[in-house]
Amino acid sequence: MSPAEATTLLVDHGRQVEAELETLLAGLDRPEAMPAERRLVAAMRHAVLGGGKRLRPFLVRAAAALGPAEPAAVLRVGAAIELLHGYSLVHDDLPAMDDADTRRGRPSCHLAFDEATAILAGDALQALAFEVLARPDWPASAELRAELVAGLARAAGATGMCGGQALDLAAEGASLDEAAITRLQALKTGALIAFACEAGARLAGLDPERRDLVSTFARALGLAFQIKDDLLDATGSAEELGKPAGADAAQGKATFVRLLGEAGARARLEAVRAEASRALDKLGPAALLLRATLDLVVERRH
Amino acid sequence: MSPAEATTLLVDHGRQVEAELETLLAGLDRPEAMPAERRLVAAMRHAVLGGGKRLRPFLVRAAAALGPAEPAAVLRVGAAIELLHGYSLVHDDLPAMDDADTRRGRPSCHLAFDEATAILAGDALQALAFEVLARPDWPASAELRAELVAGLARAAGATGMCGGQALDLAAEGASLDEAAITRLQALKTGALIAFACEAGARLAGLDPERRDLVSTFARALGLAFQIKDDLLDATGSAEELGKPAGADAAQGKATFVRLLGEAGARARLEAVRAEASRALDKLGPAALLLRATLDLVVERRH
Repeated sequence: MSPAEATTLLVDHGRQVEAELETLLAGLDRPEAMPAERRLVAAMRHAVLGGGKRLRPFLVRAAAALGPAEPAAVLRVGAAIELLHGYSLVHDDLPAMDDADTRRGRPSCHLAFDEATAILAGDALQALAFEVLARPDWPASAELRAELVAGLARAAGATGMCGGQALDLAAEGASLDEAAITRLQALKTGALIAFACEAGARLAGLDPERRDLVSTFARALGLAFQIKDDLLDATGSAEELGKPAGADAAQGKATFVRLLGEAGARARLEAVRAEASRALDKLGPAALLLRATLDLVVERRH
Repeated sequence: MSPAEATTLLVDHGRQVEAELETLLAGLDRPEAMPAERRLVAAMRHAVLGGGKRLRPFLVRAAAALGPAEPAAVLRVGAAIELLHGYSLVHDDLPAMDDADTRRGRPSCHLAFDEATAILAGDALQALAFEVLARPDWPASAELRAELVAGLARAAGATGMCGGQALDLAAEGASLDEAAITRLQALKTGALIAFACEAGARLAGLDPERRDLVSTFARALGLAFQIKDDLLDATGSAEELGKPAGADAAQGKATFVRLLGEAGARARLEAVRAEASRALDKLGPAALLLRATLDLVVERRH
C-alpha cells in the first residue's frame, strides 16, 4: 500500500471517528442543563473534536483488519480511546504540568476556557471514555465490554499514562539513561498505543499467539512513535507541528534526541522500525494496514 | 436499630473497606517502578486511605441488605466508589478549584505532594475505580461488571459530579434559587450517593419496583446529606469537621443555609428526611440498615 493510499484511509477513518465522537458527546446534552454545564461540555468538545490525526483509532482498525470485526465496534473502541487521549492532553497542558499554550494549532483548553473547567473537562472525558465502552449500545458482548474497560483503565492509570506523565515531570532537568527514558515512553504514550492495537486484535478474534505478535508490534510502534515525536520537536517548525517546536528542549525534557543526539535517535528509530516490521512479517499479508501505519508513523512530518 | 449500633456497623464496615482499598492499591506496586511512579502511588494512598466515614460504601451494604448479596461484591463496589470519591476530593481541593489546604484533618493532596502529582493521582484513582469494577477477580458476572462501570461513569461525568462541580464553581458569588441549588447538589454529591444505593439494590437482586423505591430514597438521602453538610459548615467547628468551618460562606458558595437561613435549612432537612423515610416504609423491615444510615446522615456532627 502506498503512503498516499494509507493517508487517504487514515483521513477517511478519522472522519468516521469524528462523527462517532460527535454522536457520543451529543449524548451529554440535556435540555435542562444550566449554562455552566453547557460550558463544561463545550470544553470537552474543544478538547476532542476538530483536530488530531486519530492515529490510535486507526490502529484499532488496522489491527482489527487481521480478522473479521464489526465496523461499528472498531469505531466505538477508537472513539473511546480518543476520549481518553483527549483528556490526557488537556491535563498534560495544564499550568501545573507542561504549561502549554497551544494544542493542535488552537489554544489549549485551559486558555480557551479556564483552568478549573479544563481540569473538569478532562475528568469528564475520562469518565465518558469508560461509559461508552461499558454501555450495551454497540455490538459487543458484556464480557468484551468489561475486558476493554479493564484494559483501557490499565493503560490510563498509575501503571500506564499517569505513571508515565509522573516520570516525565520528574525527568525535567534530570539526565535519564536509555532504559529510563524507554520506560517513561512505554508508560506515557506506549500503553495507550499498545491498547489500541491489542483491542483491535481482540475485536478481530485473533488467537493468543497472533495477539502476542500484535503486542510485540505495538510496543515497537509506540517506541518508534515517541522517537519520531522527539525528532520532530527538535527539528520541525511550529507551523508543521501545530504546537511550539523545541518545547521539549526548552523545558529540559528527557527525549531520545537529547540522550542519543539526532543521528543516534534516527538510527534507533530505524532499529525499532525493523523490530516492528519483523512482527508484521509473521502476521502475514493481512497485516497490510498495520504496515502502512508503521510507515506513516515513521515518515510523518508532524 | 440504635444510633450506637449503626455507628458500630459503619465503623466496622469502614475497616473492611479500608482493607479492600489497601489490597487494590497494593496491586499498583511494581518492583521495577521508579521513584516518581512510587510517589504517584503514595499520593493516591494519601488521598483514599486513613480517613473518611466510608458512608458511600456503607450505603452499598445497607441497600444490598434488602436481598441476598455476596459480601465480597459489596466490598468491591464500595471500594470502587471510594476510589472515585477520593479522586473527586483531590481535584476539588486544587488551587484552581476550591483551593482547600486541609482534608480529613490532614494536608490536602496538592500540599502533601505537589499540584501536578495531585492532578495525576486523581486521574489515576478514577482509572483504578473503573478497572477494579471491570476486571473479573470478584464475584460478579460480566453483565453486572459492565453495568456497574456504566452507572459509575454516568454518576462521575459531565451529567454527574463533574457537571455539579462546574455548577458549584459558577455559583460562587451568584445567587441561586432553590431549584438551581438542588440541581447543583443532585449532580455534585447526589449522583454518587444514588449510585451507591442503586448498586447495592442491584447486588441484592431487587425487582424494578423495589429498585425504584431505593432510587427515590437515595435522591432524598443525597439532598439531606448536602443540607446537613451546609448546616455543619455554617455552624460546626474546624476541629469537629476535620476541615475549615465557614469555608463555604467565605468563598461565597451557594448553600442551602445561605438560601434558606439556618432555620429554613433545618426545616427543609426534616421534610426531605420524611420523604426518604416514606420510601423506606414501602421497602419494609429489610430496610433497617438504610433507615439507620438516614438517621446517621441527618444527626451526624461532622
